[in-house]
Amino acid sequence: MERRKFIKNSALAGASAVAGTTALSSPALSQGKKQWIAVSAFGKAGLLGQALDSFSSAVGTMSGGRLTIQNYHAGELVAPFEAMDAVQSGTAQMGYGAPYYWTGKSDSITFVACMPFGLNVQEQNAWCYYGGGIDLADKAAYNPLGLKFLPMGNTGNQMGGWYRKEVNTVADLKGLKFRMPGLGGEILKTFGTNVINLPGSEVLAALTSGAIDGTEWIGPAADLGSGLYKVCNNYYYPGWHEPATILDSFYDLKEWEALDDELKAIVNHAAANTNLMVLSRFQAANNGALQKLINEHNVNLAPYSDELIQAIGERAATVIPELAQKSSDATELYNSLVSFRETMVEWSQISEGNFMSKRVSASFKTI
Amino acid sequence: MERRKFIKNSALAGASAVAGTTALSSPALSQGKKQWIAVSAFGKAGLLGQALDSFSSAVGTMSGGRLTIQNYHAGELVAPFEAMDAVQSGTAQMGYGAPYYWTGKSDSITFVACMPFGLNVQEQNAWCYYGGGIDLADKAAYNPLGLKFLPMGNTGNQMGGWYRKEVNTVADLKGLKFRMPGLGGEILKTFGTNVINLPGSEVLAALTSGAIDGTEWIGPAADLGSGLYKVCNNYYYPGWHEPATILDSFYDLKEWEALDDELKAIVNHAAANTNLMVLSRFQAANNGALQKLINEHNVNLAPYSDELIQAIGERAATVIPELAQKSSDATELYNSLVSFRETMVEWSQISEGNFMSKRVSASFKTI
Repeated sequence: MERRKFIKNSALAGASAVAGTTALSSPALSQGKKQWIAVSAFGKAGLLGQALDSFSSAVGTMSGGRLTIQNYHAGELVAPFEAMDAVQSGTAQMGYGAPYYWTGKSDSITFVACMPFGLNVQEQNAWCYYGGGIDLADKAAYNPLGLKFLPMGNTGNQMGGWYRKEVNTVADLKGLKFRMPGLGGEILKTFGTNVINLPGSEVLAALTSGAIDGTEWIGPAADLGSGLYKVCNNYYYPGWHEPATILDSFYDLKEWEALDDELKAIVNHAAANTNLMVLSRFQAANNGALQKLINEHNVNLAPYSDELIQAIGERAATVIPELAQKSSDATELYNSLVSFRETMVEWSQISEGNFMSKRVSASFKTI
Repeated sequence: MERRKFIKNSALAGASAVAGTTALSSPALSQGKKQWIAVSAFGKAGLLGQALDSFSSAVGTMSGGRLTIQNYHAGELVAPFEAMDAVQSGTAQMGYGAPYYWTGKSDSITFVACMPFGLNVQEQNAWCYYGGGIDLADKAAYNPLGLKFLPMGNTGNQMGGWYRKEVNTVADLKGLKFRMPGLGGEILKTFGTNVINLPGSEVLAALTSGAIDGTEWIGPAADLGSGLYKVCNNYYYPGWHEPATILDSFYDLKEWEALDDELKAIVNHAAANTNLMVLSRFQAANNGALQKLINEHNVNLAPYSDELIQAIGERAATVIPELAQKSSDATELYNSLVSFRETMVEWSQISEGNFMSKRVSASFKTI
């Protein structure tokens, strides 16, 4: 509580300072200009910090300065996982993170991020924008927390993870000390895996000391910088636990509703644009990073064995519905995602899936 | 020439009428408000007509009316394939279509739409936004035509096409009368296929009369409405000829450059948003349409044989570089796409491709 009060007071002081500065240079505050504070769970320097900066800059430009957003990246105002607290307490008007960061606040919100063996990114976007996903996420997860949700980035398909030793059989999962947050970790627990959750900043040290035997992370572009290859050289695919992960922007519901149509459209467009740009930037960087990991850092790239994928997939189909029964909100989100998945699987497989396996018959060379 | 003069005059009359109306209700024209005319190659009623309407509406809302766009869908002001003429002649300030519609104007522009066995949609977006694609398309195709390009929609992976009779071997391609525009058609010609290009509106009649034996189209959502299943019931995948197709918005270069930063950002965001929404809407609808085609219309869904895919892929790798030598602009676009593809193939296959083939191990049911 003390921590929160402190945060709130210092942030308000910060906000007043910002407002004061602007008031000196322009009388615009009295003309309906708004200034927001955004808090992020991601660091300033990385791709996602840059994405938030671009978002806020675009909102300021498109609105002709009618809505300006001051960003505080992870640790600059509050700790990464306190971003949602900061919005709920009124310290900030919006936040940026990933839905499964907020599982302490909601039984259902993790389903908004991703579901093991669930939707890929193209399907997630279809669900969000044309499958009622945003509305349902609001109703079942964000509105009850006093918030409005908009997707604002996607990692795309993640990698399966880093392992010190090879894993080939179900028996290899037993007793393994593995870091995997969220629904994926719940599935691994049923195989006797000792699932350990650690903040990202502690993972490399834990691997080095032997406190954990492996960890899931994101994908090549993000993993290359993490240095995990220095202690683990078995790199498995696919990321069955995070087929694609939606990043969330969330807004104080009253602040959101107080926006006029013009500003709502601007924030909506800036968030959707960021959604596409984050995915595109990961996509552009992943293969180069993968080749570096393989060729310069001697990483052993391998698919999970059919035995493992089959066993984990079957287990997912029993464990996840159990977890979805925690609350009616979770059930509703689970049912929506599963129904939507049902309408996606065959088309995605015969179109994107089949094409990717067949296109290698053409071997183009630059001229 | 007469036609164009007529178009130009009637459009200007239309624009004046619009401007006149607004001038009566507001003095804003003199305060730097802009009114544009957009011409589209797509019909008003379909998904792409709706996408253009949403785009223009969003630009008007976000700009607070500083830039309003009056849409003329296919045939409303000019014929579909005359949209680019209309922008170049000053009748309209922007147009909407697909880059390969404008091959009569540019040797290179077809490469902006798609390349057989080339990039999928996720990779195309990565190329456009983070691989220099938009800048290169401008330099090598649009700017020389006096235009600025922004991607504004994507079909995603298309289907291979509709055939009266089964095609299984390379021999089956010889003498086949098949409609396939663009680079894909050029490849089929080398197998002795009689490639016939027809406007979409004439395809069903040509199939019915036997003038053609088959046609490529788009994907299930669009194909269901076309009624092609009434005369052809062999429906092949994947769409090797159009792995994903970029739709283009193009702007009179001088009008574009005259926009201030705020309006440029608004148009940029509205176009990128439309890019994502068109893909998401196709994705949301395709599988339902596919199931209807199979279950209600007895369509025979089949993969192209390995023999065909292998032979066509190998041929693509010789035919396309030859076509890319038509001009230095085409060569530059081809080289950029091929280099980018090189950096994408392995990652896409082990992430999205592998995941989609493996996720069926989990069979979820609603609860």
